[in-house]
Amino acid sequence: MATTHLMTDVEADADPIVKAVFADIRETRGSDFINNIWRALAADPPGLKRTWENVKSLMAVPGALDPKTREMIYIAVSVANGCSYCVHSHTAAAKAKGMSDAEHGELMQIVALAASTNHLVTALQVPVDPEFEVN
Amino acid sequence: MATTHLMTDVEADADPIVKAVFADIRETRGSDFINNIWRALAADPPGLKRTWENVKSLMAVPGALDPKTREMIYIAVSVANGCSYCVHSHTAAAKAKGMSDAEHGELMQIVALAASTNHLVTALQVPVDPEFEVN
Amino acid sequence: MATTHLMTDVEADADPIVKAVFADIRETRGSDFINNIWRALAADPPGLKRTWENVKSLMAVPGALDPKTREMIYIAVSVANGCSYCVHSHTAAAKAKGMSDAEHGELMQIVALAASTNHLVTALQVPVDPEFEVN
Amino acid sequence: MATTHLMTDVEADADPIVKAVFADIRETRGSDFINNIWRALAADPPGLKRTWENVKSLMAVPGALDPKTREMIYIAVSVANGCSYCVHSHTAAAKAKGMSDAEHGELMQIVALAASTNHLVTALQVPVDPEFEVN
Amino acid sequence: MATTHLMTDVEADADPIVKAVFADIRETRGSDFINNIWRALAADPPGLKRTWENVKSLMAVPGALDPKTREMIYIAVSVANGCSYCVHSHTAAAKAKGMSDAEHGELMQIVALAASTNHLVTALQVPVDPEFEVN
Amino acid sequence: MATTHLMTDVEADADPIVKAVFADIRETRGSDFINNIWRALAADPPGLKRTWENVKSLMAVPGALDPKTREMIYIAVSVANGCSYCVHSHTAAAKAKGMSDAEHGELMQIVALAASTNHLVTALQVPVDPEFEVN
Repeated sequence: MATTHLMTDVEADADPIVKAVFADIRETRGSDFINNIWRALAADPPGLKRTWENVKSLMAVPGALDPKTREMIYIAVSVANGCSYCVHSHTAAAKAKGMSDAEHGELMQIVALAASTNHLVTALQVPVDPEFEVN
Repeated sequence: MATTHLMTDVEADADPIVKAVFADIRETRGSDFINNIWRALAADPPGLKRTWENVKSLMAVPGALDPKTREMIYIAVSVANGCSYCVHSHTAAAKAKGMSDAEHGELMQIVALAASTNHLVTALQVPVDPEFEVN
Repeated sequence: MATTHLMTDVEADADPIVKAVFADIRETRGSDFINNIWRALAADPPGLKRTWENVKSLMAVPGALDPKTREMIYIAVSVANGCSYCVHSHTAAAKAKGMSDAEHGELMQIVALAASTNHLVTALQVPVDPEFEVN
Repeated sequence: MATTHLMTDVEADADPIVKAVFADIRETRGSDFINNIWRALAADPPGLKRTWENVKSLMAVPGALDPKTREMIYIAVSVANGCSYCVHSHTAAAKAKGMSDAEHGELMQIVALAASTNHLVTALQVPVDPEFEVN
Repeated sequence: MATTHLMTDVEADADPIVKAVFADIRETRGSDFINNIWRALAADPPGLKRTWENVKSLMAVPGALDPKTREMIYIAVSVANGCSYCVHSHTAAAKAKGMSDAEHGELMQIVALAASTNHLVTALQVPVDPEFEVN
Repeated sequence: MATTHLMTDVEADADPIVKAVFADIRETRGSDFINNIWRALAADPPGLKRTWENVKSLMAVPGALDPKTREMIYIAVSVANGCSYCVHSHTAAAKAKGMSDAEHGELMQIVALAASTNHLVTALQVPVDPEFEVN
C-alpha cells in the first residue's frame, strides 16, 4: 500500500545515515519501536535525516507549549489536511502524553466547529474586520 | 468583497432572531463589538442562530481544555483550511486569551511541521502501524 | 494582483484563437461581459480554448441536473477548495439562475455541516460500513 | 482502523445520552441501522448529541432544498475535503433519495470541472470582477 | 471499496462509447492494461470520454514540458489534494518515464517544504510584495 | 493585512539571529531584496532561522532536479494548498529561473487536470490497482 519500500532494520544497518537516524530516534524516544514513516523515508537518506531533525528539534525539545498541546495541534492540522496515517500516529502520541478522553472529545468538536465556520466564512467571503489586523 | 450584505445594527433590530442573537453575542462576550462573520450570516437568521449556538456552546463554556488552547487549535484548523478571515479573528482571540509571542511562534512552527509530514506521508502512502490502531 | 496579464478586447482581437473563444463566450451567454478568468487564461490560447470547451460542454448544455443545482454544486466545491474568485462568480451565476435567499442560506449551512462531519470522520478514522460499498 | 472504539448496542444502552441518541436516529430514519460514524462518536456522548442534533435539524427537516439536492451538495463538499467515509455514506444516501445514474455521473463531472477551474484561478490569482461583489 | 462498479472488458464491449475509449487507451499507451479509474468512470460513458480526452490531449501529446516533469507535477498536486489512488498511479507513471530514486526523494522534500511554507504564510497572512505582481 | 508585524531592516539589525539570517538571504540570492515572508517570520527568530535553513538547504543547493523544475513543483503544491502569496512569489521565481510562457501555460493545465482527476477518483473511491503498489 506504499509507493516506496519500508526499510527493515537489517537494510538500515547497511546505510550509515539511516543507521544513525534510526539509532537517534530510538535513543530520543527511549523505545525500540521505529514507526513506518521513518522506514518509508529511509529510501531517501538525506530526506530522512532532514525530516527527523525537523521533528526532533521541535517536538522533542522543551519550549513554550507542553508536549500534549503540541500533539493536539498536530492532530488538528493532520485532520484538516486529511492525513490518515498522521491522525493515527499523533492521536496515539497525544494519548501517551496524557490527553484524556474528555480532551480528545473536545478537540474533535473544536476541529469540527472550526471547519464549519471556515467553510461558512469562505462561502460568504467575509471581509476581515480592521480590528483584527496587525500593523 | 463579500457575497452577501453585512447587516448593520439598525437592520438587525428589525429582525427578532437577529436582534436576539446580536444581543446574546454582546452579553456573552462583554463587548459591544459584533465582528463581520455575524453581520454576514445575519442575511439567513436561522443559519445565524444555529452557528452562534454552536460556537457559544463550545467556545464560551468551561470544559476539558482551557480557552487559549482552544483558540490555538482553532487557528491550526483555519490555517490548514486556508481561511484568511478565521486566521485573523482567532489569532486576535488567542492573544486576548493570553497566547504569548513565544507560544504563537511555536504554534506556527508546529503547524508548518505537521503540514510537511502530512504531505510526506501522503506522498509515500505510508501504511498505518498496527500499534496505532484502536480496536 | 494576478500572476498574469488580463487580456483586453483589443489584444484579444490580435489572436485568432482568443478572438474566437471570446466571441463564443459572448454568443453562448448572450452577454457582452467577459469576466476575468477568461482574460487571465487568454495568455495561453490553447489553455483558454480547452478550459472554455470543458465549461461550455458541461454547464451550457441541458442534462440531468438543472442549471441552478449545477451552480450550487459548483459553489460547494469552490468553497471547500477555498477559491475566492470562484465563490464570487458562481454565487452570482446561481442567483442569476434563480437561487433564492433561502436556498443560498440552506446551501451555506449544508456546506458547513458537511465540513464539520468530514473533519470528525477523519479525526476518528471511521471505517466504511459494508452497507455503503458497491461491488 | 479507527482512532476510537466503535460502540456496540449493548455498550450504548449503558449510557443514557448515547442510548437516547441512538433511539432518535432509529426513529428519525425509520431504520434499525446505526452507521459507524455514530458508533465512533459515542465515545464522547456530548459530542455525539451535538453532532446528531446538527445533522437532524438540517438534513431531516423540510426546507428550501429537496433531500436529493442536499445529499448531492454533501457529496460535493466531502469529495473536495477528501473524506472517504463521507463520500461512501452520502452517495448511498443520495441514491436512496432518488439520485439517478445520470445525475450521479453529471455530479462527478461538475465536481471535477469545478476543481479544475478552482485550481486555474488560484494559479493565475484572478482578481474578482467588480460585477460579482455584493455591497 | 468503490462507490461505483468497476466495469469488466466484457461489459465494456457492450457499450460503443466505452468500447472505443478503452481501445484508444490501449492503443495510445501501447499496453493492454486498463487501470481502475477508467473502469470506474465507465459507468458514465460521456464522463469517461470527456475525462480520457482531457488526459490524452495533455499528457500524451508532446509540448513544452517533458513527460517525466509532467508526471512529477501531477504527483505534487495529487499529494496536496490527498488523492491516494492518484499518488500511486502517477508515481508508477513517473518511474516508468524515467524518474530516478534521487529525483523522487527530492520531489518529496520539495512538496513537504512547500507545504510547510504554504501553512506558515497562511498563518501569518503575509501580504504579497508589489515586486511579485503582474500588471 | 498580516497577523504579525513585518520587520524593517532597522529593527532586524537589533536582533543578532534576524540580522544574520537577513544577511545570509541577501548573500545567497545575490540581491538586496528581502521579501515579506522573511519580514513576517522575523517576529519569531528561531522560527525564521529554521525556515530559512530548510529553504536554503533544498532550493539553493544543486541536486537531482534543476532550479526551474523545483519552482514549478513548488507552484503546483502552493496552488493546491491555496496559498496566494506562495503562488505569487514562486511564479516570479520560476520565471526568473527560465520558465517560458508556454511552460507556464502547460503547468497551469496539468495542475487543473490533476485536480479534476483527483476529485473524480475521490468521488468514485477507486481502489488502487495492485500493479501500482510497491512491496
